[in-house]
Amino acid sequence: MHLKLPLVLRASCAAAVTALAVPAVSQAPASQAPAARQSVADDLVVANHILANEGVLDGYGHVRVRSPADASRYLLARAGAPALVTAADITEYDLESRPVTNTTAAGYIERFIHGEIYKARPDVIAVVHCHCLDVIPFAATSVPLRPMYHMGFFIGAGVPVFDIRRAAGITDMLISTPDLARALAQTLGSSSAALMRGHGAVVAAPSLRLVVAQAYYLNVNARLQMQAMAIGGGRVTYLDPQEARKAAQTYERSWDAWRAHLPRR
Amino acid sequence: MHLKLPLVLRASCAAAVTALAVPAVSQAPASQAPAARQSVADDLVVANHILANEGVLDGYGHVRVRSPADASRYLLARAGAPALVTAADITEYDLESRPVTNTTAAGYIERFIHGEIYKARPDVIAVVHCHCLDVIPFAATSVPLRPMYHMGFFIGAGVPVFDIRRAAGITDMLISTPDLARALAQTLGSSSAALMRGHGAVVAAPSLRLVVAQAYYLNVNARLQMQAMAIGGGRVTYLDPQEARKAAQTYERSWDAWRAHLPRR
Amino acid sequence: MHLKLPLVLRASCAAAVTALAVPAVSQAPASQAPAARQSVADDLVVANHILANEGVLDGYGHVRVRSPADASRYLLARAGAPALVTAADITEYDLESRPVTNTTAAGYIERFIHGEIYKARPDVIAVVHCHCLDVIPFAATSVPLRPMYHMGFFIGAGVPVFDIRRAAGITDMLISTPDLARALAQTLGSSSAALMRGHGAVVAAPSLRLVVAQAYYLNVNARLQMQAMAIGGGRVTYLDPQEARKAAQTYERSWDAWRAHLPRR
Amino acid sequence: MHLKLPLVLRASCAAAVTALAVPAVSQAPASQAPAARQSVADDLVVANHILANEGVLDGYGHVRVRSPADASRYLLARAGAPALVTAADITEYDLESRPVTNTTAAGYIERFIHGEIYKARPDVIAVVHCHCLDVIPFAATSVPLRPMYHMGFFIGAGVPVFDIRRAAGITDMLISTPDLARALAQTLGSSSAALMRGHGAVVAAPSLRLVVAQAYYLNVNARLQMQAMAIGGGRVTYLDPQEARKAAQTYERSWDAWRAHLPRR
Repeated sequence: MHLKLPLVLRASCAAAVTALAVPAVSQAPASQAPAARQSVADDLVVANHILANEGVLDGYGHVRVRSPADASRYLLARAGAPALVTAADITEYDLESRPVTNTTAAGYIERFIHGEIYKARPDVIAVVHCHCLDVIPFAATSVPLRPMYHMGFFIGAGVPVFDIRRAAGITDMLISTPDLARALAQTLGSSSAALMRGHGAVVAAPSLRLVVAQAYYLNVNARLQMQAMAIGGGRVTYLDPQEARKAAQTYERSWDAWRAHLPRR
Repeated sequence: MHLKLPLVLRASCAAAVTALAVPAVSQAPASQAPAARQSVADDLVVANHILANEGVLDGYGHVRVRSPADASRYLLARAGAPALVTAADITEYDLESRPVTNTTAAGYIERFIHGEIYKARPDVIAVVHCHCLDVIPFAATSVPLRPMYHMGFFIGAGVPVFDIRRAAGITDMLISTPDLARALAQTLGSSSAALMRGHGAVVAAPSLRLVVAQAYYLNVNARLQMQAMAIGGGRVTYLDPQEARKAAQTYERSWDAWRAHLPRR
Repeated sequence: MHLKLPLVLRASCAAAVTALAVPAVSQAPASQAPAARQSVADDLVVANHILANEGVLDGYGHVRVRSPADASRYLLARAGAPALVTAADITEYDLESRPVTNTTAAGYIERFIHGEIYKARPDVIAVVHCHCLDVIPFAATSVPLRPMYHMGFFIGAGVPVFDIRRAAGITDMLISTPDLARALAQTLGSSSAALMRGHGAVVAAPSLRLVVAQAYYLNVNARLQMQAMAIGGGRVTYLDPQEARKAAQTYERSWDAWRAHLPRR
Repeated sequence: MHLKLPLVLRASCAAAVTALAVPAVSQAPASQAPAARQSVADDLVVANHILANEGVLDGYGHVRVRSPADASRYLLARAGAPALVTAADITEYDLESRPVTNTTAAGYIERFIHGEIYKARPDVIAVVHCHCLDVIPFAATSVPLRPMYHMGFFIGAGVPVFDIRRAAGITDMLISTPDLARALAQTLGSSSAALMRGHGAVVAAPSLRLVVAQAYYLNVNARLQMQAMAIGGGRVTYLDPQEARKAAQTYERSWDAWRAHLPRR
């Protein structure tokens, strides 16, 4: 969003980012919280655009982030294609996934995913739900995802597969109720990601930038694993679980590169 | 086209297309039908551009839609590359695939496909014929397409394969006569799509936006199935037929995302 | 090139194309031949750009066309990356591949390919030599290319593989002498294309537009065949040779679509 | 950077970088060395952009070149995404990988790779370290990379695989110490490239343009080999080692084509 804002608004964003630097944002004085929220909301718009532009999200899927001002709230765009999300679409939800702002706008039908994962995982700040293509073949087979290289380090702790049929029999495949979202959160457990059979994946991380990068590399790693299995048969050397733990990183440079890669509008 | 023209020009194009529509108006009041037809023709131009831009159509293939004013007419561009179609190319045909407007322009040699599917399927409003790459390998083998995820739900009802050789022996592979088109419509039956051996596919749907999305996801699903077969061998879990039925959707957000993705001209 | 010419020059190109409409260009009066040559040279620049933009040519490879004014001459860019070719680079060669114009510019080291194929094949007007990726795996195995669909019809007559080692033992893999070019022409025989082991392919056709399209679809067909072999094992149904012969076409619409797809400069 | 700046700005940037170079000038006359260093630094910026734009580098990875003025110095961007590198980021390091200019900027944690390879290989002028995707599957299996065609000639001399675990047990996979860099340089030996298990590759060459092209074609060749293995099973004909040696080339035209392919900024 702030990619196209006029200069005056951009200046106020810059101010907002400064405010965000206050160490514990959720305890910030009331006068700073709106600025911090604005900065996070701006980043959330960019996150939507990056995930769409890099092919992680298509017309569907979503990314949301915990509110910096109130850990019992989360920010998420109202229902719409991620590539087209603007600042005006960012909506605040409570942990029951009821809209607190933008209350008349249509919400993503699967927004319960976010509330239930937040309840189960206080460490999680941001979540991506995607129909990302490269993981679908793994979700449809009994082949577990394994870390191919250090950029996929978070896969080392295991990526469980959620089969909605075991939780609820024959469905329309969507996580459209709090009960289904709780079952998904339970399968996710303490992992960074879970695949969803016949549907896609959820990725959870302690920051927005991290969740964007992990969603991206979850897919890259899946492609590489398919190729390694094709040429190496059963003899592929994955990262050792200890190597994967040690290789943990923040992907700090990726965000800037992806952001620069966004089409000019 | 209407993505880029200044308003004044758009109005004059609209008038031109509206004029063409006059003869066919039959079920709607004269004052409403031209506007409805114009809106559908505009969408048809966008549909051509989206299908070309997303790689579903190359220099060939076509998409057409039933006239909103007269169920016995359909709209289709005159022969030309889909990426270059403009409002002036939109031509009205009767169900025998004879041009009613633009009568001196060259028509797609395979336009009979559209008339015959309309005759056989009153539920069908829009049809895509594509040489879309990802389905060709399935059309050349005895491996049936199966729904990999909810975005490919319509594949759950089965995607038959039309082999022109069984209908007409050795041919040039094209559906260049009403007889061949009828044979293809018969193979399609009540399905959403049929593959054509050594040629491509036809996709049929109750709306233009739906047929564009189904043509797109027919290809995506084919790619995913190839990958799942490669890593999972014979043990791939496809959507259950009942899941596929329940997962039916309108892909409403996809159109906007694809349209925003069109190159500026 | 004429994509970026100022209006005055573009008008003269338009005149040139009109002149080209004279049925037998090689017998045209002297006053028309330069215009015809200019038109063909313009198309040759576009052909270079299309083949680069669609991924058939990388920084190397070339496309040339027989001179419309003299069947014993051919037009080819001087040595340079195809994406960057301009009208000033177009050079005229005799059938011994000696430059007749631009005589001080460096020529493609492999230009002999063109002279020798012209000598052996009076029906050939245009030739592409590419390091096109999708055919390299076929050139390196004993798996013959087969026509997957009507767009690959010309593959039905067979695509022989030239192994330079059988002609000349250990070499640098390049067709850098008339002798090597003759051996390649002999392997090509009457086919539309030949693969070159460890190198790429040559494609020959009776027109510039046709050779561009055949080079493009040679690669597309190779990709599709790899995929069909992967999912179908040994049970792939290729076009019947008679079907392939009947499916012959001019790809007329492709050129316009590819040309519109070129980046604006 | 110098792709877009107006001339006046370019001159001032040039001055800035030249100033940095002054301390290191040792073997060339003072009047020539700054210009040579500036030219190399400019090329290094372009090399970063090309490698990012062609998908060899993502947000990580780096390319550096030996200083033209002092063989005991090398030029490398400070830590940052390659697509965003500007002339101001170019930093000079000594062979212990200590910054000589830009001394307060953060350096790539893996910059030791460059110093140690320079020490071991006087013939090497430029090095790329990439997390390039296509080679990861080969680094994870016991399948050696082999030259598929003349553009991959340098693979003919063998591409060893470095497994950091054999050198240092369980690590974070990064070459973050001089010791690890020495072990990697030892595995590289006299080869043009080495794969790094669970990480990526290093590519070394006698010029900047050559190393960019070899990094690019290392990946292309890997893709082609995967495909050839899939269709040909164990019967793939690779370049003979002697053919590979004879096919050595400079890829001179590739640089211009890739540079023209960079997005305008």
